[in-house]
Amino acid sequence: MKKWLLTVAIATSFGATADEGMWQPYQLPAMADELKAKGLEIDANSISKLTEFPMNAVISLGGCTASFVSPKGLVVTNHHCAYGSIQYNSTPEKNLLRDGFLAKSFDEELPATPGSRVFVTEEVNNVTDSVLSGIADKTGNDFYQAIELKEKSLVAECEKEDGYRCKVYSFHGGLEYYLVKQMAIRDVRLVYNPAASVGKYGGDVDNWMWPRHTGDFSFYRAYVSKDGKPADFSADNVPYEPKSFLKVSAKGVSDGDFVMVAGYPGRTNRYRTANEVENTFEWAYPEGKMLRERFIEIIKETAPEGSDERIKYESLIAGLANYAKNFTSMIEFYGKSTMLADRQGREAELTAWINQSSERKAKYGKTLAKLDKLVAEGNEHQARDIILGYIDYTTMLPTARKLYRLAHEKTLDDMAREPGYQTRDMTGFKSSMERIDRRYAASVDKAILFDMLSRYAALPTSERISALDKAFGIGQPFDAKKLQKTLDKMYANTELDKQDVRLAWMDKSVADFKKSNDPFIQFAVAMYDTDMKGEAKDKEHAGELMKVRPMYMDAIIAYNREQGKPVYADANSSLRVTVGHVKGYSPQDGLQAVPFTRLEGILAKYTGVEPFDAPAKELELIKNKHYGDYHVKSLDSVPVNFLSTLDTTGGNSGSPTLNGRAELVGLLFDGVYESIIGDWAYDPNSNRSIQLDSRYMLWVMKYLDNADNLLEEMEIVH
Amino acid sequence: MKKWLLTVAIATSFGATADEGMWQPYQLPAMADELKAKGLEIDANSISKLTEFPMNAVISLGGCTASFVSPKGLVVTNHHCAYGSIQYNSTPEKNLLRDGFLAKSFDEELPATPGSRVFVTEEVNNVTDSVLSGIADKTGNDFYQAIELKEKSLVAECEKEDGYRCKVYSFHGGLEYYLVKQMAIRDVRLVYNPAASVGKYGGDVDNWMWPRHTGDFSFYRAYVSKDGKPADFSADNVPYEPKSFLKVSAKGVSDGDFVMVAGYPGRTNRYRTANEVENTFEWAYPEGKMLRERFIEIIKETAPEGSDERIKYESLIAGLANYAKNFTSMIEFYGKSTMLADRQGREAELTAWINQSSERKAKYGKTLAKLDKLVAEGNEHQARDIILGYIDYTTMLPTARKLYRLAHEKTLDDMAREPGYQTRDMTGFKSSMERIDRRYAASVDKAILFDMLSRYAALPTSERISALDKAFGIGQPFDAKKLQKTLDKMYANTELDKQDVRLAWMDKSVADFKKSNDPFIQFAVAMYDTDMKGEAKDKEHAGELMKVRPMYMDAIIAYNREQGKPVYADANSSLRVTVGHVKGYSPQDGLQAVPFTRLEGILAKYTGVEPFDAPAKELELIKNKHYGDYHVKSLDSVPVNFLSTLDTTGGNSGSPTLNGRAELVGLLFDGVYESIIGDWAYDPNSNRSIQLDSRYMLWVMKYLDNADNLLEEMEIVH
Repeated sequence: MKKWLLTVAIATSFGATADEGMWQPYQLPAMADELKAKGLEIDANSISKLTEFPMNAVISLGGCTASFVSPKGLVVTNHHCAYGSIQYNSTPEKNLLRDGFLAKSFDEELPATPGSRVFVTEEVNNVTDSVLSGIADKTGNDFYQAIELKEKSLVAECEKEDGYRCKVYSFHGGLEYYLVKQMAIRDVRLVYNPAASVGKYGGDVDNWMWPRHTGDFSFYRAYVSKDGKPADFSADNVPYEPKSFLKVSAKGVSDGDFVMVAGYPGRTNRYRTANEVENTFEWAYPEGKMLRERFIEIIKETAPEGSDERIKYESLIAGLANYAKNFTSMIEFYGKSTMLADRQGREAELTAWINQSSERKAKYGKTLAKLDKLVAEGNEHQARDIILGYIDYTTMLPTARKLYRLAHEKTLDDMAREPGYQTRDMTGFKSSMERIDRRYAASVDKAILFDMLSRYAALPTSERISALDKAFGIGQPFDAKKLQKTLDKMYANTELDKQDVRLAWMDKSVADFKKSNDPFIQFAVAMYDTDMKGEAKDKEHAGELMKVRPMYMDAIIAYNREQGKPVYADANSSLRVTVGHVKGYSPQDGLQAVPFTRLEGILAKYTGVEPFDAPAKELELIKNKHYGDYHVKSLDSVPVNFLSTLDTTGGNSGSPTLNGRAELVGLLFDGVYESIIGDWAYDPNSNRSIQLDSRYMLWVMKYLDNADNLLEEMEIVH
Repeated sequence: MKKWLLTVAIATSFGATADEGMWQPYQLPAMADELKAKGLEIDANSISKLTEFPMNAVISLGGCTASFVSPKGLVVTNHHCAYGSIQYNSTPEKNLLRDGFLAKSFDEELPATPGSRVFVTEEVNNVTDSVLSGIADKTGNDFYQAIELKEKSLVAECEKEDGYRCKVYSFHGGLEYYLVKQMAIRDVRLVYNPAASVGKYGGDVDNWMWPRHTGDFSFYRAYVSKDGKPADFSADNVPYEPKSFLKVSAKGVSDGDFVMVAGYPGRTNRYRTANEVENTFEWAYPEGKMLRERFIEIIKETAPEGSDERIKYESLIAGLANYAKNFTSMIEFYGKSTMLADRQGREAELTAWINQSSERKAKYGKTLAKLDKLVAEGNEHQARDIILGYIDYTTMLPTARKLYRLAHEKTLDDMAREPGYQTRDMTGFKSSMERIDRRYAASVDKAILFDMLSRYAALPTSERISALDKAFGIGQPFDAKKLQKTLDKMYANTELDKQDVRLAWMDKSVADFKKSNDPFIQFAVAMYDTDMKGEAKDKEHAGELMKVRPMYMDAIIAYNREQGKPVYADANSSLRVTVGHVKGYSPQDGLQAVPFTRLEGILAKYTGVEPFDAPAKELELIKNKHYGDYHVKSLDSVPVNFLSTLDTTGGNSGSPTLNGRAELVGLLFDGVYESIIGDWAYDPNSNRSIQLDSRYMLWVMKYLDNADNLLEEMEIVH
């Protein structure tokens, strides 16, 4: 049996040995028997209903997942998900990040960082028919625009009710569309966070790594108006009373136990074609890694350690390095894997199946070839596109373009505007213009832009864009000194580096822009027609893809249905359920990662220097073997983190990890290094999620931080 | 129960759970029952007899261990133990190191590197009475000299028989002395070595590391004259026929199996006092690490990568780095351990036991205090001594001193000379003078000497040596420029950098030296009286220690004897037996090292770049799962290396690892990182030796290198 066959079996069946799959809740009842066999004790039907326990206790923070753990709106999530709010409330005198924070009563709770939301998913409706009706004959850009308009209408209708946020999610590349309606609670308060030396123990060094010893948890509370509606922060607001909440297990899990996670995984690529896999791993990731590393180099050269400029770019460096590491891991594991051959084999098998029946041949016979052709067309200019894409990491150029685009969009009806430029987006738009002050230094921005434009100038003439060449005076041969002078002048003369100037441009007309002397505004105006043409071409291409990829997915689903195997959609930030088991793995021949770490591991990693700087009191408790109520005999300690086979990705952070009775036994907060490539292919041997163990959380709360008020408020199951 | 009590129990008992102990063969019969319970199947008495199987099959290569594996003198040892011989026979055209080598018949075998020896231990006699008789009233230097003279006489007597090499080994710091008589076979030939990409797979990156995938084996053959006597290389010589040889197991071992090793461990410090432990780990190792790292820096600065000078210093850099890493590991583990407290506890307990009886009090009551005082005196000038010690890593200064010393020693009777300057040492002395050409560059030697002397000059005046100050013109305040000029002149004017000049000095008189204009010879002459005074003081101190430390060990042995526990002596390069089990360990909380690695691990580590450059044919065999006769079902592969609890250290390299029937199941070649500190304290949880699995050796021989002639010559047990 070839490996890819096994992979397909895993990818699409729900067999007892494989825990792959990010399931939409509605899919679960059909799998009730298998879930029960795996270890689910509650009714599978109940998990499919968003307004019932336990699903109505699982919430989104936008980018992270969380859950209600008390009848008074107490929310538990990861420390790294509440990080912004902890930082926001910290001062040099009262450093909550360093020292931790515990509100001993409701009135000591602190406002979360501005913009914080608790999203309670209330409805998920299949709107496929509504989105696709009456547009079957449209193609390309028209098809794209038609779908976008349908989506905007559905969202507008849904958001009429005050305090709600709605969004249409596309599944299987456009085969299905679901409208998700979420109550958006906007008075969110920080209740409790352990010290960073607990909550971030191991820091970036341990990121994506096992063994892990991170107390990655924090508590929020959701507040609403007295009549139970979402409301801005007010002293009169009252704790939100969720319809249900999760009980917290003090008993925890053991090796091999069933676990499940409900959460909001961001993005996976499990159904990409072999050609897409090949191009991504053999071209796009290596190129992206190189550009990211070059970016970091430029920033470090231009903004030396300790400079004000450097401080502004630390978070960009961290983000770039994070994904450079991510790409490195993916390239490394791809090189050692049979992923490409597996995909090719899978496609060959699918094609053979299609060709077995004239009916299937008529329906899907040309689909893969079409898809391959579209993908190839999309990659035609990728050497140029990736450079232009990375230019969007600079500040001045995209800022000018966005502002000028806004002036154009504002001439249209709200509903006709490009998403991101509608009235509902303006709060976010303004924030993004304000944020620039803390993240911009002309010297760095210019150095990066110069490097990227030099790369662009080295492309063959056929790949060059005449408007862009003209705007920067890039001729043949390329004159680097001249470009440097042009950029020097542009950065010296622009006023877009001033916040009030940027905000003022938000209200100006197209005519105002055309009259401007600001060199970046002039650039945006000069590029506009070319930009719009490019965007139309991209949408034309995207529209075509939105017709072909659903067909391809339809074929895959039909193929699997014939074998009685359900198919889960790639992650798209919508609510999913994944089930699995507590289980270790072999990171390397000769080594076994065991599923639990212990308190003693904190002591062993301790150096006294961040990120291995556990609090003195914690070290003392561990040295004294003060395990208290959470001692686990088989470990002769308290478990800190544990591994599971759960199929998760970024966005799942903070997800409650539940046992078969839907009690909270952990918080998902990371995956192991070997599972980074899991976004492309789930390997049952090495795909492991990392969870904070509920017993470590309770141990820290009880013995280290004395959070008795919260321990009393929660319902703890012994 | 305190941990140190457990440690003492382990260190001195032979309990079923602990595998600590480097036993002298004569100690084994007393442990017969315990050895049997552990898994020994052959008679424990037989292991105690050096002239019987299996001990007469175990041989020393001087620095490494090896064993006979055929009736025709075929010897198996580690690849790294035969490295010099492989390198010696390699040319750019015929690169045996890179490509491997296999003699298909006896006459294709190649001479080993000059100086290679196979030492067959024939007799080990307790000569304690002989060494210590009639000198009880001597003290200090007199005592030291008296013992040295006794040793030299015993050795001279023993070496009267041609072809033998003898040595007196001191045990327990001088409590016992044993005279070891070894036949020294000096016609040694290289028979077979796998390619370095097998034999050194993982190289320095994997040194001291697990998981490991190194095929660390090579074959020699011992040749003797037709009448069976050791002889110089000659075409007329015939293969040596050992009295017995080891059978090689094709069945190998499993997790938990009994294993034992006979070999020549170099040095351990298991019985050092708490004060010695504290000073070593808190002062000497950190200081040594710093000096070594500084040395490497200087060499790298002075001899840039790719320069001729650099090539000459690569092996010194490797050696310095090796021990810098060793020290780093020891400092790291010491910091996390309770070693110091354990030793202090052990000493307190011993003291309490001594104080329980007036007889013991009379005998040992002052021993520990005396020992502590002597140790403290020895460390009094350690800040200076360590610098002067590291100056011995330079070349010119010690060379001049050694040559001048030789002129002095040669005025004495051979028996009265300092060891190292006797007639029996002259071959080695000459080689060391010749070797300098390949390892010396004036620029580097000068830079290091300048750095060390600058450190010396920074010491308090009380620590300075006036003769040394005068020789280099080091005044108060220190004038670095002046020293630099002095050294420039010395290195410019010396002729000791010429081999013929050095060799000529070997035959000159003290008067010749005194007349010399060579600046380094002048230095040696100027320092001689001071050097001799220093040496006499050191010997005075050593002589005192040689009286007190045996008393301390005597107390420890008596204390343990009372509890029925045998005591093994610290390693001293003499033949020892250690027994243990195949067993993994936890290198870190959350990780488990499993006891076997597999062929697939070679594939996973493969990068194509040294040291992860396995041969193409091997990769192909592994990809095709060509496990052949050596497939192990539980691993679904061929085991490559395995872990055991065997108590070993440097010098054990190449030791045959035997099963309960004394069949060769592996070759010991390294220990894990966590066991580097094992030279000071054996931790049953983390002290692990790394062995090459006999099945991997046979697999490589059969399927990769087609060494059928050797497979036929050996006796393989299925």
